[in-house]
Amino acid sequence: MATAAVVKGLEGVVAANSGICWIDGYAGVLAYRGIDIHELAEQSTFEETTCLLWHGRLPDRTQLDEFTQKLIVARRLPSEIFDLFRSVPKSATPMEVLRTAVSALSFYDPDESAVDHDSNVRKSFALTAQLAMLVAAYDRIRKGNAVIEPDPSLSHAANFLWMLHGTKPIPAATNAFDMALILHADHELNASTFAARVIAGTMADMHSAITGAIGALKGPLHGGANEAVMKMLFEIGKSGGDPVDYVKALLAQKKKVFGFGHRVYRTEDPRATHLRKMSEQLSKESGNTKWFDMSRRIEEFVKVEKKLNANVDFYSASTYTTLGIDLDLFTPIFAVSRIAGWTAHVIEQLDDNRLIRPRAEYTGPEYPVKYVPIDHR
Amino acid sequence: MATAAVVKGLEGVVAANSGICWIDGYAGVLAYRGIDIHELAEQSTFEETTCLLWHGRLPDRTQLDEFTQKLIVARRLPSEIFDLFRSVPKSATPMEVLRTAVSALSFYDPDESAVDHDSNVRKSFALTAQLAMLVAAYDRIRKGNAVIEPDPSLSHAANFLWMLHGTKPIPAATNAFDMALILHADHELNASTFAARVIAGTMADMHSAITGAIGALKGPLHGGANEAVMKMLFEIGKSGGDPVDYVKALLAQKKKVFGFGHRVYRTEDPRATHLRKMSEQLSKESGNTKWFDMSRRIEEFVKVEKKLNANVDFYSASTYTTLGIDLDLFTPIFAVSRIAGWTAHVIEQLDDNRLIRPRAEYTGPEYPVKYVPIDHR
Repeated sequence: MATAAVVKGLEGVVAANSGICWIDGYAGVLAYRGIDIHELAEQSTFEETTCLLWHGRLPDRTQLDEFTQKLIVARRLPSEIFDLFRSVPKSATPMEVLRTAVSALSFYDPDESAVDHDSNVRKSFALTAQLAMLVAAYDRIRKGNAVIEPDPSLSHAANFLWMLHGTKPIPAATNAFDMALILHADHELNASTFAARVIAGTMADMHSAITGAIGALKGPLHGGANEAVMKMLFEIGKSGGDPVDYVKALLAQKKKVFGFGHRVYRTEDPRATHLRKMSEQLSKESGNTKWFDMSRRIEEFVKVEKKLNANVDFYSASTYTTLGIDLDLFTPIFAVSRIAGWTAHVIEQLDDNRLIRPRAEYTGPEYPVKYVPIDHR
Repeated sequence: MATAAVVKGLEGVVAANSGICWIDGYAGVLAYRGIDIHELAEQSTFEETTCLLWHGRLPDRTQLDEFTQKLIVARRLPSEIFDLFRSVPKSATPMEVLRTAVSALSFYDPDESAVDHDSNVRKSFALTAQLAMLVAAYDRIRKGNAVIEPDPSLSHAANFLWMLHGTKPIPAATNAFDMALILHADHELNASTFAARVIAGTMADMHSAITGAIGALKGPLHGGANEAVMKMLFEIGKSGGDPVDYVKALLAQKKKVFGFGHRVYRTEDPRATHLRKMSEQLSKESGNTKWFDMSRRIEEFVKVEKKLNANVDFYSASTYTTLGIDLDLFTPIFAVSRIAGWTAHVIEQLDDNRLIRPRAEYTGPEYPVKYVPIDHR
């Protein structure tokens, strides 16, 4: 029976013990396995961060080499997935395609229903390697380009950009993308991660949990914010007007400026700091400072005018666009990063599982309502 | 920030207001929109019950005719789904295939990202009609049989059996299956329904929510129990031994007898009553009483010996087998019924939405753990 009043959206309700992610919204702290995101953003790689998320501590050199090698070996997709991509109508969005492809990948897993620790880790390698490939390959196929084979000499970040563009990325591009992957890799019980844990809690398999998480991330309240930021930047670019004038007009119409503020953080989103720096460096090295400059001016204005801080979505928008990534791939790329956290949470959930099954506060017609036969209604 | 101690599995935590389903586990009451499940099982149909779940009250004759007609018109699948079915490896389970097909169906929805009330209701008709067709068509295709066209003169339950077997069902078969659909149509915030609401809470689309729900239902802690019951019955049938001796031996080995007891109900599961009666009638009329008789003897023994009541899964096992339904379709058929409740909950969630985003109690290494460069680890 229900034992407490309803907390809408479960805001502030503790739904699980977890040793993966520490967030202090008041102090503006985000840490994976206790290590501050600032240190990881500056010194780690996506591979090392993923190893940390899954296994709980930083690997030594031998462990990291082995981990990296496993991720490289896992860069394989069955040909049926490419057939599926070719059959998809043009109108489908990449998130629908990604959700469907991940669901279909379970057909080819040698032990898809296994939920023991080792099977979950094996599947985590597979899905982390494959998600990046799926996004890149689908973008190639929908544009009528040949799918690019993965390059085992490249890091996870560089290989994604290689498979997307078919050209080897400049170091600043790899570094920026790698950092974006680290910064988005986990964020405690966000809605998609929580969905993954609810699904895994029935002892459903990893592919079911990740398919559900992709579905949740697809929602505009979760994954869509950096896309909204970029749409604004594009509109400003197209109009040729001054970015600050544009934002002033938005605020005068009481409209939301996307990319500012956060439900959890009361200070600057610690992830924004690094994306700003990285976006600046990338824009200079790639010779395209247009989107960074525009973003910087908007940020400064909103900070003074509205006392609002830029969040992780704000600078990821200009970063991805400068990397030559299409707008509708922003959310799929969020998944390419968050898969590290999703899988870590599914592993943790199933290591000490309990079915997640809350109750509802009933607000309908009072029981018993009589069943009236149809001719007497 | 977290404001309360963790409640593992959210047991007893109220996660939402809902006017759909009322459960009193102590009194053994289940009601949809306030109407007792006993009255619905005996007097309603799946179509009428689904209308009740979605719209909140029983339809009059004109409304029911219109509702039924909409469900019949929605019996359509794009040919690409059959191509997908033909490409699936033999080793895939029907639940994986169903999850993937529902995800792929969003490609063909005319407004897949829309989450307004009317769009959600339209998609609920489509998915409710299609889920039954998907299960039947996939079973035909995997067995090398031709897909059967839906028959608009048949009810939802009868059409499913028709599309599965290619023969018109006897009335007792239609009645038994229709009742099974009614009894499984909703059960408040069970794990799959909760997963659907968490996904919908990001304002993700209906197909994302239902895809996630299918993934959750796939877990053996949720959808797999009647399959386990039937495996036991098959084993007893194969051994040729006495059912009670078999169960005695199970209990002596401290093994679980599936199909008894329930986390919510402290009395008999109100759904079991009807399935028992219906299963008996069906077994007599179809001339195959083997599985019913075996079930009855086990139930009587376990009730006396262990003071445990049969639950909804216990008699659905023998009912489905007597209907000629394969073991690995039991959970897909659960989805064919529960889609009515899943969609009702997604509609309700999005009519008054709030992102579902709980917190975790952090149990990992205490912040801050220093990032040690790799050569110093």
